[in-house]
Amino acid sequence: MAPYFENSCDSLVADALMGLARTHTDLLSLDTDHWFLRARDTAPSRRVGLLSGGGAGHEPLHTGFVGRGMLDVACPGRVFASPHNRQVYEGSLAAAGPGGVLHIVKNYTGDRINFGIAAERLAHRGIPCARVLVDDDLASDSEEIAAGRRGTGGTVLIEKILGGAADSGLGLAELQELGTGLAARCRTLAVASAAHTSPATGEPAFRLGPDEIEYGVGIHGERARDTVSRGPLGPLVRRMTGELLEALAPGPGAQVITLVNGLGAVTPLELYAVHRELGRALDERSVGLARSLVGEYITALDMRGFSVTLLIADPTVLTYYDAPVRTAALRW
Amino acid sequence: MAPYFENSCDSLVADALMGLARTHTDLLSLDTDHWFLRARDTAPSRRVGLLSGGGAGHEPLHTGFVGRGMLDVACPGRVFASPHNRQVYEGSLAAAGPGGVLHIVKNYTGDRINFGIAAERLAHRGIPCARVLVDDDLASDSEEIAAGRRGTGGTVLIEKILGGAADSGLGLAELQELGTGLAARCRTLAVASAAHTSPATGEPAFRLGPDEIEYGVGIHGERARDTVSRGPLGPLVRRMTGELLEALAPGPGAQVITLVNGLGAVTPLELYAVHRELGRALDERSVGLARSLVGEYITALDMRGFSVTLLIADPTVLTYYDAPVRTAALRW
Repeated sequence: MAPYFENSCDSLVADALMGLARTHTDLLSLDTDHWFLRARDTAPSRRVGLLSGGGAGHEPLHTGFVGRGMLDVACPGRVFASPHNRQVYEGSLAAAGPGGVLHIVKNYTGDRINFGIAAERLAHRGIPCARVLVDDDLASDSEEIAAGRRGTGGTVLIEKILGGAADSGLGLAELQELGTGLAARCRTLAVASAAHTSPATGEPAFRLGPDEIEYGVGIHGERARDTVSRGPLGPLVRRMTGELLEALAPGPGAQVITLVNGLGAVTPLELYAVHRELGRALDERSVGLARSLVGEYITALDMRGFSVTLLIADPTVLTYYDAPVRTAALRW
Repeated sequence: MAPYFENSCDSLVADALMGLARTHTDLLSLDTDHWFLRARDTAPSRRVGLLSGGGAGHEPLHTGFVGRGMLDVACPGRVFASPHNRQVYEGSLAAAGPGGVLHIVKNYTGDRINFGIAAERLAHRGIPCARVLVDDDLASDSEEIAAGRRGTGGTVLIEKILGGAADSGLGLAELQELGTGLAARCRTLAVASAAHTSPATGEPAFRLGPDEIEYGVGIHGERARDTVSRGPLGPLVRRMTGELLEALAPGPGAQVITLVNGLGAVTPLELYAVHRELGRALDERSVGLARSLVGEYITALDMRGFSVTLLIADPTVLTYYDAPVRTAALRW
């Protein structure tokens, strides 16, 4: 039997949504006809609604980011499965402002298809809709992977920054351009010392040797190119940081926003130790650490792993990032 | 080998503290001479400093609660080990306001001894010091346990409420009386479907059958009186809620603050589903759900378990609870 406290994943997702809505009645409401979460409150200056969504099992992404200053609507699917296009369509009708609705989509085939169908229906209704595709996972950056890089940790930062930008009154095309630029300047790498438990079987989704680390794991347990040997945290994080910087090629004087993210069962002690090593690695390369987040923001059920995300930020991006946010999982 | 990403626990705690201090430079600083974390900023109206501490491995408790509106100082020990009395003494000197310093101590023998020695030294220096002992763990409420009930999840709520009360300008005796009253009106129960991994051995700290749940587990893996059979979440949470309410015996019209807390490897989906069941159980008994927290606030490394805390609150307590807080792990 799986170690989870409930055996039916479908009822678990529904129960969790109802629990979230009851905990945060001041922030959001749950539409039980179409299963999306909607912010109660939007900045008057916001003209374009922001909507995201994707499979459950990655909480707090996206449901924990609904509220003032971030997402207007989140559409959760079943565990590790895309939301239905009807959810996205109905959620978009609720989210849309006078300037339309922006879809923030992680690059997975099911999500692309379902958000795409919803966007077509919105176009028929005459509702302006655009998409930002987030594809930051460096481990899937390969010509052999036709679907392109997966979307992962960068989504958290991009949703926050676009939230601040939407509150500043930007229009749909400006937000899309900003978001697309952010995705291009953002990369993530994830490692795991143990897989998540498959809710269906109760068994680990994959098995590693006792001295192995999966280097480049995906948030659904997608296997990596490499396993590497276990060893101290410092060299591991330096390697990850080096590869991320090589891909991003920041110019002189560049500043980054960092996210050290727990994938489920990694302790806060480990995450903050990772951040310390990340800070040292950035110092060594004279890359400025402008802002940083450490915690569980995009998980993979109970996977024992963490991801490191770097996003190259200019002063405008930092202003949007710093703008007030009030959601279940992020507030300042 | 343990699934942790670092094998030396001692260096992990030190690295994590340095990582935390670097992440939250605006909120706190780390005293590396005496290993305590100190808030950068205190409300001008606060006359009494608040200090807590205890073994590491329970993060974000207590280090994540240092900042404006909550703790002035946190003293972390090694994993699952009390801080040294010198840490507590030096931290108290840093924390003390004109009205002295209040120690918030979870009821464990090592913590009681080390905080006690520090308090004696503070008395010699003429610094007013008082203690609030938190002993909310219902599972250790037994005449056979001479040490009394352990301190656990209630500590989070009590530290928040006392932070608001200290900011309102209460004196040392008033805060001690308030805190002692809060501890008396607060109880917690925890369950686990799997133990945490012992950092020393890499093995689970205890073993359960595949269909067993440890009912009443402690935050260091203290075994419970009972194992119970696995089953749906609803009856489990209803049983926990019923026993907590029986112990607290709230009067008619009573309101509670609730904490549904993850012990390490439980998913947010599960925690919010627990909160939904808790809300239903309280509704059935006509107990008002005044405020609620859901998330990981006091962990036990990577234990697969959760705790439920109820604290009976009056309007004054709610005012202190609602007062602004700005720490790494809690802010509103």
